[in-house]
Amino acid sequence: MADIRFEIINKLGVLAEGAKGWKKEVNIMSWNGRKAKIDVRDWDEEHIKMGKGITFSKNELKALKELLNELDIDELDIE
Amino acid sequence: MADIRFEIINKLGVLAEGAKGWKKEVNIMSWNGRKAKIDVRDWDEEHIKMGKGITFSKNELKALKELLNELDIDELDIE
Repeated sequence: MADIRFEIINKLGVLAEGAKGWKKEVNIMSWNGRKAKIDVRDWDEEHIKMGKGITFSKNELKALKELLNELDIDELDIE
Repeated sequence: MADIRFEIINKLGVLAEGAKGWKKEVNIMSWNGRKAKIDVRDWDEEHIKMGKGITFSKNELKALKELLNELDIDELDIE
């Protein structure tokens, strides 16, 4: 597997805490030296091991915010 | 690789459209017959090929909404 460089620039928040200290976090991150993006992903306590996640550009994040504000989350039939 | 069953129950929105018709979508999805969750991920036009993504429970989605509403997204130094 190729080497992946990453830098957590700013920790914005924690969405959930799971087993063994893993947390679903929202961070500003740079991947392989590229311009920073918002990154939502599971991390272990030391930020060494990571789970799958997704990055958002500024425009994608704005679209997500708009979408969430239009949703009645309580009404959704989800876990 | 093990077989993964999934069902897109409801398409809530598209956050971005990329090359070759791939879209970053927000959907209500069930994975392997489990209770539905919110799923944010890249998909090809036919919803056959998928990129990495992340799922959110109701509580995680509420926490994300709160976090985004506290952020001044325009002020973030991101792509």
